[in-house]
Amino acid sequence: MSIKQKLTQLSELGEFRLIEHLTGDIKLRNKSSLKGIGDDAAVLKYGGNTLVLSTDLLVEGIHFNLMYSPLKHLGYKTVVAGVSDIYAMNARPQQITVSIAVSNKISVESLDEFYSGIKLACERYNVDLIGGDTSSSMTGMMISVAALGIADEGKLVYRKGASLNDLICVSGNLGAAYAGIQILERERKIFQADNRIQPDLSGYDYVLERQLKPEARKDIIDLLGQSNILPTSMIDITNGLASDLFQICKHSKVGCRIYMEKIPIDEETAKIARELNIEPVICALNGGEDYELLFTVPLNKSEIVSSLKEISVIGHITGSDWGKKMVTSDGGEVELKAQGWN
Amino acid sequence: MSIKQKLTQLSELGEFRLIEHLTGDIKLRNKSSLKGIGDDAAVLKYGGNTLVLSTDLLVEGIHFNLMYSPLKHLGYKTVVAGVSDIYAMNARPQQITVSIAVSNKISVESLDEFYSGIKLACERYNVDLIGGDTSSSMTGMMISVAALGIADEGKLVYRKGASLNDLICVSGNLGAAYAGIQILERERKIFQADNRIQPDLSGYDYVLERQLKPEARKDIIDLLGQSNILPTSMIDITNGLASDLFQICKHSKVGCRIYMEKIPIDEETAKIARELNIEPVICALNGGEDYELLFTVPLNKSEIVSSLKEISVIGHITGSDWGKKMVTSDGGEVELKAQGWN
Repeated sequence: MSIKQKLTQLSELGEFRLIEHLTGDIKLRNKSSLKGIGDDAAVLKYGGNTLVLSTDLLVEGIHFNLMYSPLKHLGYKTVVAGVSDIYAMNARPQQITVSIAVSNKISVESLDEFYSGIKLACERYNVDLIGGDTSSSMTGMMISVAALGIADEGKLVYRKGASLNDLICVSGNLGAAYAGIQILERERKIFQADNRIQPDLSGYDYVLERQLKPEARKDIIDLLGQSNILPTSMIDITNGLASDLFQICKHSKVGCRIYMEKIPIDEETAKIARELNIEPVICALNGGEDYELLFTVPLNKSEIVSSLKEISVIGHITGSDWGKKMVTSDGGEVELKAQGWN
Repeated sequence: MSIKQKLTQLSELGEFRLIEHLTGDIKLRNKSSLKGIGDDAAVLKYGGNTLVLSTDLLVEGIHFNLMYSPLKHLGYKTVVAGVSDIYAMNARPQQITVSIAVSNKISVESLDEFYSGIKLACERYNVDLIGGDTSSSMTGMMISVAALGIADEGKLVYRKGASLNDLICVSGNLGAAYAGIQILERERKIFQADNRIQPDLSGYDYVLERQLKPEARKDIIDLLGQSNILPTSMIDITNGLASDLFQICKHSKVGCRIYMEKIPIDEETAKIARELNIEPVICALNGGEDYELLFTVPLNKSEIVSSLKEISVIGHITGSDWGKKMVTSDGGEVELKAQGWN
């Protein structure tokens, strides 16, 4: 008798459930490990110091395409991806390591470009590149970044602290990086169909920069500190507003209600979205790679937070039985949906 | 006028010179960064604690082949690669992060296997898996591991501390992992040429285990501590004895003289090497992936170190103008050569 075992595809679980499935049973054994998997960064305690550590992968063909990602920008973005997680814990990045696997066909001069972007971002965010590994790759390029930061233990912000009636806030504007990748992909397809047609990227400067050379919101962490606002929960928006807001709701065991009209979307993003027949709000909800901060603050901070430039209040936290809702422009209400593994 | 720029291939530099070229100009800016790129791990100072941080990449087709690497073993080896660097600094691993990029075709059950190997090794080496990132990959599997450890600052051991007349020591035996990969590759080729012929791996248990499921030498660090031996320099052998000894010589600005007869090689390794028409000593010098410790101790520790099981004294440190030499069985002397980028 032979029973063929049915294997489970990754797509059946999705990224978040997969991580939970694989690592949910892990118990921390060292007293220096305060918090493991499940937030933007792990939290460690060494002597009197509270440290946060996070890691990110950037994979060719998934996170970037060397056809249109200049290597200097890619180096810069690598550092941003690392430090953004540290800011999302309300901590300060101190050190990063960057490991890369590259085909032997890549030149030393190309890697010089990549490292010049890394060094520029290290200067901008005041972090030290202290290590890494290099390897050849049989196929595409892969980058791994680890970032270590220091935090004030009492001021660490997790995904789990949002409470009923807290205001939901985002920094900057959303969906631009997604609009940028759509433009780059459109031009790539045109070029690959007929390579006499040169890509026309003029007029798309803002969204292209948001895609290719994003910034982490150190300035928002500074601003919140100066304004004496300690968020109750926080996450950086890398998977899209919907998916990242789901994380806050899940970890805080709450629901949410956001207002479509209040989601900050840049004019250029909206214009491009319409040009591409995409609802602008879809870019914000599902696009990702914004590296903006999504956070909640107590209701009594309403006045201060509303007065801060670059911060938008987009909704509030509800009871978990209220679900996760978006109020549309016409006053209707829709259920928010988060994207899965892709 | 058009001048075509000549681009430099990675192979022209080799891995170590490439890293130097790319990162040689980096100045550390944060006072918590004590030592950056250039040793087995970076060294950090947070409050009263001295931490070490290292990262490694394992790339499919370069570091492992899923045709013959069971995923559970691969998970185990991932942790070993991470903690081995920490031991090589005479420090204690505390936390690791593991990030993986995998094809969507891999099943959840396969990843379960991989993580069961990680968890087993975490238990064995008393480290906590505290984070990681998962991504899909368009091509092969890639693994990135970062390990954080704690050290006694006065007892940190760098690559740079070897002095004239110090004894050169290695733990365990060398070349077995290389013999293992040769056997696996031979059987793979036979199987691919005619898949009716099943691989015959019987009688190769030891070298296969050394290749597929190596151990890090925590026990040697314990033993040295108990014996009051503080090495003057240390590195873990991952690139091969020759290449890793070169690192100690380069960082310590010294030469070396080792004795071929004294290089510890297991009988099974030697037998297989001869079967494959390779000089056994070549497996030890250039093979790599041994995860043994290579270290130097002051001459006055000769008696103690010689009495320790699992440690072999293979030579001594000379002046840098004496070069890097190996005395052969017939009393001749050959120049040691290190391997480059591959």
